[in-house]
Amino acid sequence: MPTRPSRRLEVVPNPHPTRDYEITMTAPEFTCVCPLTAQPDFATIRIRYVPDQHLVELKSLKLYLWSYRDEGAFHEDVVNRILEDFVAAAGPRWLEVVGDFSVRGGIKTEVRAVHGKRPELG
Amino acid sequence: MPTRPSRRLEVVPNPHPTRDYEITMTAPEFTCVCPLTAQPDFATIRIRYVPDQHLVELKSLKLYLWSYRDEGAFHEDVVNRILEDFVAAAGPRWLEVVGDFSVRGGIKTEVRAVHGKRPELG
Amino acid sequence: MPTRPSRRLEVVPNPHPTRDYEITMTAPEFTCVCPLTAQPDFATIRIRYVPDQHLVELKSLKLYLWSYRDEGAFHEDVVNRILEDFVAAAGPRWLEVVGDFSVRGGIKTEVRAVHGKRPELG
Amino acid sequence: MPTRPSRRLEVVPNPHPTRDYEITMTAPEFTCVCPLTAQPDFATIRIRYVPDQHLVELKSLKLYLWSYRDEGAFHEDVVNRILEDFVAAAGPRWLEVVGDFSVRGGIKTEVRAVHGKRPELG
Amino acid sequence: MPTRPSRRLEVVPNPHPTRDYEITMTAPEFTCVCPLTAQPDFATIRIRYVPDQHLVELKSLKLYLWSYRDEGAFHEDVVNRILEDFVAAAGPRWLEVVGDFSVRGGIKTEVRAVHGKRPELG
Amino acid sequence: MPTRPSRRLEVVPNPHPTRDYEITMTAPEFTCVCPLTAQPDFATIRIRYVPDQHLVELKSLKLYLWSYRDEGAFHEDVVNRILEDFVAAAGPRWLEVVGDFSVRGGIKTEVRAVHGKRPELG
Amino acid sequence: MPTRPSRRLEVVPNPHPTRDYEITMTAPEFTCVCPLTAQPDFATIRIRYVPDQHLVELKSLKLYLWSYRDEGAFHEDVVNRILEDFVAAAGPRWLEVVGDFSVRGGIKTEVRAVHGKRPELG
Amino acid sequence: MPTRPSRRLEVVPNPHPTRDYEITMTAPEFTCVCPLTAQPDFATIRIRYVPDQHLVELKSLKLYLWSYRDEGAFHEDVVNRILEDFVAAAGPRWLEVVGDFSVRGGIKTEVRAVHGKRPELG
Amino acid sequence: MPTRPSRRLEVVPNPHPTRDYEITMTAPEFTCVCPLTAQPDFATIRIRYVPDQHLVELKSLKLYLWSYRDEGAFHEDVVNRILEDFVAAAGPRWLEVVGDFSVRGGIKTEVRAVHGKRPELG
Amino acid sequence: MPTRPSRRLEVVPNPHPTRDYEITMTAPEFTCVCPLTAQPDFATIRIRYVPDQHLVELKSLKLYLWSYRDEGAFHEDVVNRILEDFVAAAGPRWLEVVGDFSVRGGIKTEVRAVHGKRPELG
Repeated sequence: MPTRPSRRLEVVPNPHPTRDYEITMTAPEFTCVCPLTAQPDFATIRIRYVPDQHLVELKSLKLYLWSYRDEGAFHEDVVNRILEDFVAAAGPRWLEVVGDFSVRGGIKTEVRAVHGKRPELG
Repeated sequence: MPTRPSRRLEVVPNPHPTRDYEITMTAPEFTCVCPLTAQPDFATIRIRYVPDQHLVELKSLKLYLWSYRDEGAFHEDVVNRILEDFVAAAGPRWLEVVGDFSVRGGIKTEVRAVHGKRPELG
Repeated sequence: MPTRPSRRLEVVPNPHPTRDYEITMTAPEFTCVCPLTAQPDFATIRIRYVPDQHLVELKSLKLYLWSYRDEGAFHEDVVNRILEDFVAAAGPRWLEVVGDFSVRGGIKTEVRAVHGKRPELG
Repeated sequence: MPTRPSRRLEVVPNPHPTRDYEITMTAPEFTCVCPLTAQPDFATIRIRYVPDQHLVELKSLKLYLWSYRDEGAFHEDVVNRILEDFVAAAGPRWLEVVGDFSVRGGIKTEVRAVHGKRPELG
Repeated sequence: MPTRPSRRLEVVPNPHPTRDYEITMTAPEFTCVCPLTAQPDFATIRIRYVPDQHLVELKSLKLYLWSYRDEGAFHEDVVNRILEDFVAAAGPRWLEVVGDFSVRGGIKTEVRAVHGKRPELG
Repeated sequence: MPTRPSRRLEVVPNPHPTRDYEITMTAPEFTCVCPLTAQPDFATIRIRYVPDQHLVELKSLKLYLWSYRDEGAFHEDVVNRILEDFVAAAGPRWLEVVGDFSVRGGIKTEVRAVHGKRPELG
Repeated sequence: MPTRPSRRLEVVPNPHPTRDYEITMTAPEFTCVCPLTAQPDFATIRIRYVPDQHLVELKSLKLYLWSYRDEGAFHEDVVNRILEDFVAAAGPRWLEVVGDFSVRGGIKTEVRAVHGKRPELG
Repeated sequence: MPTRPSRRLEVVPNPHPTRDYEITMTAPEFTCVCPLTAQPDFATIRIRYVPDQHLVELKSLKLYLWSYRDEGAFHEDVVNRILEDFVAAAGPRWLEVVGDFSVRGGIKTEVRAVHGKRPELG
Repeated sequence: MPTRPSRRLEVVPNPHPTRDYEITMTAPEFTCVCPLTAQPDFATIRIRYVPDQHLVELKSLKLYLWSYRDEGAFHEDVVNRILEDFVAAAGPRWLEVVGDFSVRGGIKTEVRAVHGKRPELG
Repeated sequence: MPTRPSRRLEVVPNPHPTRDYEITMTAPEFTCVCPLTAQPDFATIRIRYVPDQHLVELKSLKLYLWSYRDEGAFHEDVVNRILEDFVAAAGPRWLEVVGDFSVRGGIKTEVRAVHGKRPELG
């Protein structure tokens, strides 16, 4: 597996921390490398979360997702690692990460992982 | 951040206040300015609410949304502020505001905030 | 506001009154007149109901909806009045009326009102 | 109303009777005759069920639906009668029949009837 | 019925076994043979599961699905057998298999079977 | 083959005979019977024409298309016969008839026939 | 047939008369009355033209199309009359009017008329 | 490459041989085998033709296309061979065959071959 | 009418000037101001051109289109002015500009202007 | 600009060289790097050609397109270079290359280049 490049999700203070509200960020330009065949994989990554004290800053999220470009990673692993890095950086009340990967061998794969229990928004 | 222009949501009496019913207003022509880069942002704003004693008047909502045209505001902040101004003006039993912002840095962002608990309509 | 024309929803006996079942009727050709500007408004009206002893007869529903053609009415009021006339004529166990109105001032409005509590169909 | 032709839904044993599972059959080529005007009506019939000891055999379902071709029947009645014939033939644990009829008088009608309580599939 | 070819679903260790997460694999290139008429059938197979200790390896799933190419099988049976083979190989916490078969006799058939109770993901 | 019912396309005078203009009529509710198997066939019939002295009256077209309901006819023959009956009744400057038939044996068939040379409309 | 209300298309000078360019205006909110049955008809009217010395002013076009609301008119006649009124008011180099009418008797009708020969735009 | 099974396209007389008209047949259930990897390929085959003295009989076309199921063939070769067999059997005035193959290696391939010069239909 | 801000389309050398090829740039985030009502208008601007010695630089096009944000301009005028500024800056062999404006008064307007004669690309 | 990796399009003999026919290959998983900002770009590449003596082999095309992954290249340049490499390798009678690039700065860019004159296929 290739060396993992350094990566960092930056955060900013949540301007409305007393309210549970939801943010969805969809990144259709995600690519990484299959660790078995070294061939490129492509996916759309969708992140939904209810912030606590911090928001993830948009530009750092873009750079973070780019950091996977040269990295070998299985579909299931990519999604769980994004989930864990996001939790470590922003500590959201609830988080869902979905990776929607392109067809390989005639089969399309989607992986979905969740952190925390989704608050009732009202 | 630019000065915030004066803005006011007008209301009219709800002609059927004894019934819980739901109104959805979708405004695809929303634009504001990024407070970091001064570049324009575009969004569709969707407002759903169950009125109490007042309805928001349609023309004043149009003018209210236009008032953001020259204002610097983060995505998360815009949606929460529309929510709060709407609550102050019309006091709905329940309100949801969704901002569906256009792509920046290859990532699309949607923010959703809610006021009150949604009544069971039946 | 223009005079309201006489209108009447005809009913027929429900051939299966011992079963809760659901009927959806969608009428995309609804038009009325804005009471402020006298300009035409257009909408799709969607009616869903669980009948009790009577069904609403299709042709009379068509004529009933046409009767709004020259009438001034606010969006919120139209939907609640259709609901009430339908309840008076057919006494359904449950009824939902949705009015999906065309764009005015760059904003699209949908109104949804409900009568009764929806039975569990199974 | 025209005479009802003989019709019969054939069944075969359910090869997996110990498991609750769901079968959906969609027939877009359904036609019958309006009993008032003798004009043809067209619909898509959708049948979903959880089988018990028997499955409905596909070819007999096709013939059964064709048997309505020359029959006068109201929308609401057609859907309830298919439901009852299906229950009599196959005794499913749960059954839903939906008839999605084409536009008449500018109005589209859909009827949905259900037999039994839907098992939790897991 | 033709002889069933040997087939085997390979598994790999789940890298995140402490978290409930969900994997969806969609295979639109499935074909088998009707056991009555010996004519080809086509379907899209969709598999969703929450893994326990093992993931199903993608290439072996492709080969497994290909193994049905010359096999006679009823729609309802195919879906239940895929479910059972998947459970035997990977022991998932929850599994859903859907077979969406192409039109025969003007009717489209979909079969859905489930193993286990779906965990709340959060 | 069943007896062919009497059928007649009515016409009305073209109110603008000095101008070449084009009329398109789309009828998605066409059904006839396969002359080999006696099974129902379904199609959408699309008619485009440039009128000369006469227009085809809409209600008579509806009745004309219904007259095929009990008639055995091959796809290719239906379309050519509609073309010829239309020419005999209305004598258009140009006419195109398309029959878009539903799937049989996994294959969808569309037939298109044309009468006359299409005028340049401008 | 009802009396025709007065109607007038206003024009403004074309700011770029030396260039052939094309304007398309689509009005989905058109309604008139069937002269035979007095029942409402609905259509989308699409107007494309290459202006000469004048443009049609948008608000007057809206009022002009509303003027058909209470008028009895056949589909073919409506489209040709809009064409002629537009030519009389604005004298375009080329003009196309399309009326896309809603379903009547299970048949959808579209009428297209053209004035002049379309210039090559480049 | 596997042995080629016997195959034969049956024809019937064209009932309207004096008119040029067009027939389109779309078969989404085509499968063959890659001659390099022995893996299944899937395609939609679309055939358009202007018949001369013969029509291709629908059922024999279905059987003909099934005959490729166990045959190794490159995409480009399949389409050209279908073209040639069709010409040999039915001698059409014009024929187009399109094969729209499913994704392999992240690339989707479509092949289109034509026989004869397309007649002007009018 | 507001003062027109300074604006400038930057160009870079065309790396393949000996070949006619085509570039399409679609900008859905265009807004200007109605010169009559001072209300915002929104449009999608689509630019297609065959370059000669220069390409328009993407970032300067973005800034150029933003410069209309506070400017009063009629739909027809905006499109022709973009065309002229583009020609002055980059001197393309062929250019088409389309402005697809949002609904006003229930009518949607699209304006298309072209410079030069489109080369045959092959 | 990064060093250009070695790349080579492999060809195989065209099995039907006496006929003009057309092949379309669509690759939605193309990525390269912006030479100004070093940020990733994404595109769908569509290649259509009429072969002469050689076909481009599918796997080598996949590898060829992957070779751009780490290369800095402007949109316009990428499309023209693919065109030239394809011509050098396979010498097609006609070739079209389209690059459909993802949004940057709110603007979507598509580039289309062509080699040779398209033969009439019939």
